[in-house]
Amino acid sequence: MDFALTQKASEICRQAEDFVNSHLVDLEKAVLAEGWEAIQPRLAEVREKARQTGLFTPHMSKGHGGGGLTLLEQAHLSEVLGQNLLGHVAFNFAAPDVGNMELLHAFGSPEQQERFLKPLAAGKIRSTFLMTEPEHAGSNPVWMSTKAELQGDEWVLNGHKWFATAADGADFCVIMAITDPEEENRYARASMFVFPTDVEGLKLVRNVSVMGHEGSGWMSHGELTLENVRVPKDSLLGPRRGGFKLAQTRLGPGRIHHATRWVGVCKRALRMMCERSAQRELSPGKPLAQQQTIQEWIAESRAEIEAARLMVLQAAWKIEQHGEFREDVSLIKFFVAGVLQRVLDRAIQVHGALGMTDDTPLAFWYSHERGSRIYDGPDEVHKYVVARSVLGEYGVKVKR
Amino acid sequence: MDFALTQKASEICRQAEDFVNSHLVDLEKAVLAEGWEAIQPRLAEVREKARQTGLFTPHMSKGHGGGGLTLLEQAHLSEVLGQNLLGHVAFNFAAPDVGNMELLHAFGSPEQQERFLKPLAAGKIRSTFLMTEPEHAGSNPVWMSTKAELQGDEWVLNGHKWFATAADGADFCVIMAITDPEEENRYARASMFVFPTDVEGLKLVRNVSVMGHEGSGWMSHGELTLENVRVPKDSLLGPRRGGFKLAQTRLGPGRIHHATRWVGVCKRALRMMCERSAQRELSPGKPLAQQQTIQEWIAESRAEIEAARLMVLQAAWKIEQHGEFREDVSLIKFFVAGVLQRVLDRAIQVHGALGMTDDTPLAFWYSHERGSRIYDGPDEVHKYVVARSVLGEYGVKVKR
Amino acid sequence: MDFALTQKASEICRQAEDFVNSHLVDLEKAVLAEGWEAIQPRLAEVREKARQTGLFTPHMSKGHGGGGLTLLEQAHLSEVLGQNLLGHVAFNFAAPDVGNMELLHAFGSPEQQERFLKPLAAGKIRSTFLMTEPEHAGSNPVWMSTKAELQGDEWVLNGHKWFATAADGADFCVIMAITDPEEENRYARASMFVFPTDVEGLKLVRNVSVMGHEGSGWMSHGELTLENVRVPKDSLLGPRRGGFKLAQTRLGPGRIHHATRWVGVCKRALRMMCERSAQRELSPGKPLAQQQTIQEWIAESRAEIEAARLMVLQAAWKIEQHGEFREDVSLIKFFVAGVLQRVLDRAIQVHGALGMTDDTPLAFWYSHERGSRIYDGPDEVHKYVVARSVLGEYGVKVKR
Amino acid sequence: MDFALTQKASEICRQAEDFVNSHLVDLEKAVLAEGWEAIQPRLAEVREKARQTGLFTPHMSKGHGGGGLTLLEQAHLSEVLGQNLLGHVAFNFAAPDVGNMELLHAFGSPEQQERFLKPLAAGKIRSTFLMTEPEHAGSNPVWMSTKAELQGDEWVLNGHKWFATAADGADFCVIMAITDPEEENRYARASMFVFPTDVEGLKLVRNVSVMGHEGSGWMSHGELTLENVRVPKDSLLGPRRGGFKLAQTRLGPGRIHHATRWVGVCKRALRMMCERSAQRELSPGKPLAQQQTIQEWIAESRAEIEAARLMVLQAAWKIEQHGEFREDVSLIKFFVAGVLQRVLDRAIQVHGALGMTDDTPLAFWYSHERGSRIYDGPDEVHKYVVARSVLGEYGVKVKR
Repeated sequence: MDFALTQKASEICRQAEDFVNSHLVDLEKAVLAEGWEAIQPRLAEVREKARQTGLFTPHMSKGHGGGGLTLLEQAHLSEVLGQNLLGHVAFNFAAPDVGNMELLHAFGSPEQQERFLKPLAAGKIRSTFLMTEPEHAGSNPVWMSTKAELQGDEWVLNGHKWFATAADGADFCVIMAITDPEEENRYARASMFVFPTDVEGLKLVRNVSVMGHEGSGWMSHGELTLENVRVPKDSLLGPRRGGFKLAQTRLGPGRIHHATRWVGVCKRALRMMCERSAQRELSPGKPLAQQQTIQEWIAESRAEIEAARLMVLQAAWKIEQHGEFREDVSLIKFFVAGVLQRVLDRAIQVHGALGMTDDTPLAFWYSHERGSRIYDGPDEVHKYVVARSVLGEYGVKVKR
Repeated sequence: MDFALTQKASEICRQAEDFVNSHLVDLEKAVLAEGWEAIQPRLAEVREKARQTGLFTPHMSKGHGGGGLTLLEQAHLSEVLGQNLLGHVAFNFAAPDVGNMELLHAFGSPEQQERFLKPLAAGKIRSTFLMTEPEHAGSNPVWMSTKAELQGDEWVLNGHKWFATAADGADFCVIMAITDPEEENRYARASMFVFPTDVEGLKLVRNVSVMGHEGSGWMSHGELTLENVRVPKDSLLGPRRGGFKLAQTRLGPGRIHHATRWVGVCKRALRMMCERSAQRELSPGKPLAQQQTIQEWIAESRAEIEAARLMVLQAAWKIEQHGEFREDVSLIKFFVAGVLQRVLDRAIQVHGALGMTDDTPLAFWYSHERGSRIYDGPDEVHKYVVARSVLGEYGVKVKR
Repeated sequence: MDFALTQKASEICRQAEDFVNSHLVDLEKAVLAEGWEAIQPRLAEVREKARQTGLFTPHMSKGHGGGGLTLLEQAHLSEVLGQNLLGHVAFNFAAPDVGNMELLHAFGSPEQQERFLKPLAAGKIRSTFLMTEPEHAGSNPVWMSTKAELQGDEWVLNGHKWFATAADGADFCVIMAITDPEEENRYARASMFVFPTDVEGLKLVRNVSVMGHEGSGWMSHGELTLENVRVPKDSLLGPRRGGFKLAQTRLGPGRIHHATRWVGVCKRALRMMCERSAQRELSPGKPLAQQQTIQEWIAESRAEIEAARLMVLQAAWKIEQHGEFREDVSLIKFFVAGVLQRVLDRAIQVHGALGMTDDTPLAFWYSHERGSRIYDGPDEVHKYVVARSVLGEYGVKVKR
Repeated sequence: MDFALTQKASEICRQAEDFVNSHLVDLEKAVLAEGWEAIQPRLAEVREKARQTGLFTPHMSKGHGGGGLTLLEQAHLSEVLGQNLLGHVAFNFAAPDVGNMELLHAFGSPEQQERFLKPLAAGKIRSTFLMTEPEHAGSNPVWMSTKAELQGDEWVLNGHKWFATAADGADFCVIMAITDPEEENRYARASMFVFPTDVEGLKLVRNVSVMGHEGSGWMSHGELTLENVRVPKDSLLGPRRGGFKLAQTRLGPGRIHHATRWVGVCKRALRMMCERSAQRELSPGKPLAQQQTIQEWIAESRAEIEAARLMVLQAAWKIEQHGEFREDVSLIKFFVAGVLQRVLDRAIQVHGALGMTDDTPLAFWYSHERGSRIYDGPDEVHKYVVARSVLGEYGVKVKR
């Protein structure tokens, strides 16, 4: 169990830190003050510079145009990038593109890889992922209404999806739909598809307003309808009836990616807590940092962040060594999301009224990362997964 | 200690519930979907109807054009109105107007009452309150930079304020400024003023973006500068050097108003939790409400809300009977704010992805009411006030 | 909703406080240092003095030799007595005697009342209550193995019970047993009995060692076996098949009694926290009370205790006005037990090493009142009861 | 950062697990049922067997008669031994002997090592450590009243100590006393001494009753007085004025030892939670393990234990690599103690009434390990140490 910072990882982190400090600090201020659309030109320039570091699209192999980092190296990098609102986007390392690349890499046909993966890995296009449906609990991945029917040489899709991150302006989508409703094994009823978003019948109804923002572009969550969307037979991604399996494959590392990013957010929040409490005075000559309560928040945050970090690194190391460990992935999902929420809450309290404003990224994280306990499976599902695994060793078959 | 729902209070609540159901349910949906500006004409109509109920401006005496309710009756009413995003605005019962009316009523000269209080109580104009400064911790009410100097017959004000709720479009302001910096007693250095917002030198720099919203109108928090603002000598509100005392007077009932509203928000959130968990199915035929975890959240919320409610009513009753009880007011401030945050957090988790969206008011409350633990004194200040009072009985003089 | 301290209740409290201060402070020290057996003679004297106050056996009517207090008055008194380890015992107001008296009063035949209730109310004898069985979850009150069979003129009982508080030395027992195992309605299978403990076949196997203590006398929890215990037909208490109903009747006010006592314990713990932090110095001239963390514990405890107190009083008042409210009783059971645990935890931390010792009653309460979240139904059962009631209003029939 | 289970450590753990299963399971039941004194003969036999494993006194080098394990290996072993109440005692690996051996090893003169360390490491004698005083806050290590004065060739000690673990029956003591009260540097006023407990003037006043137990032998905490205790000049342990430094040296690894043991206790508690919930039925055929609440407790415990374990191993690894890291040691002290308390609390709730009894070790741990948040520095001191270190990086000099 060696999940140390190797010399290579250490160098990657240093390089990433320099990049963040040089190119992303101001851009973060800009996106908070001016919004997503306004910063597009500057962001494009920065991404171009990121490409030159050799760390762009870090999770893809060099052959696929990526940085070729191991999962542990990705974890270390993600911890650095997560400390800036734009870190992951700048390095083409953000959801949902990362997961889509991983799916296409593992299951895409050569044609699909050429058409979708290659430009996505190169950062030329954007993608979205259509899974969740407003009518069904996202925590039950085998219950959905979107259907795909094979009619001749075409699949015809009908359905309703939402929380399709970055759908607004995405070039293609990966989508899950029921292809075999009569299949007895309910985990084998769905299949995955990949096709361009400009097909007829696919409509972005709205960017769902989330915590007060409709957002746009990458910073948005779309609601879409599919009405008789016709796509060629070879739009199937991976095997028919393999939808659930692919979704799980996608979510495993996806949760590692999220959790490492959250550790980064936490580290930033702790740093901001320290800086603010060192500078802000309660009365002349008496900085907040001398308040015992604030000292305790700092100590508790340090402990929780260290715990979260070690657990995430261990999970990444285990996956790297032995393939996926579902229990570990679920463990970090709810544990780190909990730490994230508590650390952000403390950071806001330390900042007082300023913490409520968009003059810092804390308010954005506080409101939008409330979703960390919901998306990719709510806490309760992940606790269930862990308990099922643990209790299984005691002969208990936990019921759903 | 009888803080029962009298027959009169009971009738008031019934009437208010009917009003909310008839006039505010749709308007709340509209404000979430279309924003504050868009609903202004409809809101004006609704306020006209509210005026006809006799409960408009409930906290002012009939003589001052209000509903003439006792503090306990106000508490009961506020609990009902708090269940809708627009309840308090509709009844001319929202911060900062309420506090300003109370100040003007208690300390305003006949001229000030005629000029500012009368039209405010009638709902014809809007006001703002300028106290917090970005450069100083809001938790220290005696440390500020805004100064007012008497030059001949005029006060000349210079300073920088923010978190001036509803400053955008307000007709007049109440403002706290240092008039006597050399005064030894630091609680006697500031005075309060009231004057129109169109005076020269008073500038609304921006609506501070809070949790992603700049907002506008009543739903905004302004940052303002005062550069050589000259106002007549009689703009002083209450006695010179009385600023701190007036602020405290204003904040006491203000915290009761907030806390009663929060109880209303909690009740709505619990109702939404129940409705959602009764309807939403995890799998066909299995509603969320059958999950033990959700049942426990409902039970815990019920308990905490009941506790909060009783404490708030008791505080209102004590004030009504005996005048202000600083300890009780501080007690409910942090206790109820804590309940509010926990209940909203559970409600969002029950709603899953929907809870993150603005299709319900939960996300607005979750993000914006995070401020409840900060504004009008952060939790830590109120805990200090309570501890100082409790430990005082044991001979301890708690230091700041 | 007036659950004020009436003048009478106020006088009762004053009288009880005087009594505690005069007679129980030293006795509490003695029981901690010397144990239960050693203080028996002094306790008997004190009980004799308590009898002379007119408040002895406060919950029984004057006609039955008690103090004739209303439930609200009992609540106020219990809050005072709970502040001393021996308060309730001194006033013949302790479990399980209180519950047994209430049962005998409501359901006992004239003969049973004469034989058991009269001397118990007079404080001449002691009793125990046999319900919980080691083999079955106490949280399921309809599942037990102890059986009573009618053979001719006698009931023959066989079974195994534990957590029979004060069984050691008790003169009689009230016991629940299955009399009608074939009865379809599972809530109608059990009946209640009352008979002396010296019947043949009833054996006290041991005083169960609880948190390190076997204890003795009133301060003990017995494990008992019944082997062919033969008692006369008229040993039935209340109607056959009425066991569950009687148990519920017993537990309702029982939970009020516990909760009011816990509020008393909390008040004592807060007082000790304040006294200790006022006196104990961290360094010369710097008392613990100047630590912000301790101030926050004091403020949080004050708030939680006030909340608990109001909820308990409200529940007592509702029962007094309208008969039992199962939801309210369950609400206070888990809410107040939670407050109790947190307040005691803080009090121990304030006392440091001293808090771990038996030089104060905190360690006893901390360890033994851990049971407050378990006995008379674990928290989880009470949350279920509340959720079932709340969700019932939304058309959900919550499953067990 | 490789704190893996090496093959050697893995073998040690397997061996220790076998030992616990073969020799300590029954002995634990015996000590709970019969008490410490009763099991002495059996314990002596078991210790003899432990000696033959080569793991006896694991923290001492082979040359000093120990097992010669590295700190990381000790951590792994301690995690196994901690799962049984008697694990550490059986392997001569319990406080306060471990710390005393470490002190004597590092600072003892050859004579002191021969006289005290050798037989202690061999498990032939027992020792105690006298530091805490009832009159002074244990959290302030430089404030004490016990004095040692050099009179000719003898030190004369006078003072009052308590919480001297295992003082009852100890053969020698290590004690901290003020030798240089006038020394300006308050960290250089105390010195450490070692001498036999049978010296004249040293009196064991009582075994302090802790959580209801006076205890005896190793399972006790003594209160002692020193009245003109005269010991030879060479009783000084380490350099004069080095008392504080020695105490810190002792406490560093001591906290690692505690924390690793606590992880073991947590693992046992989780195992018991799982076993109990798998077996105990709420109603026929419905085990507790099917309750969602219990599943969540299991998942949360798994996560917290894993976090605690990784943090402890990392701290051990860092110390092994680089010497003491005060921040890390303080971090694990409060973090793991918190996990311990929560896990034990859940385990008791799962066991219901049984959890309150001494039929399992849970009640002992729940009550006595409440001290984990107090002894060797309360949580609040360790949070202060961490905050001081973290805020130091931001230029803040945190005041005490």
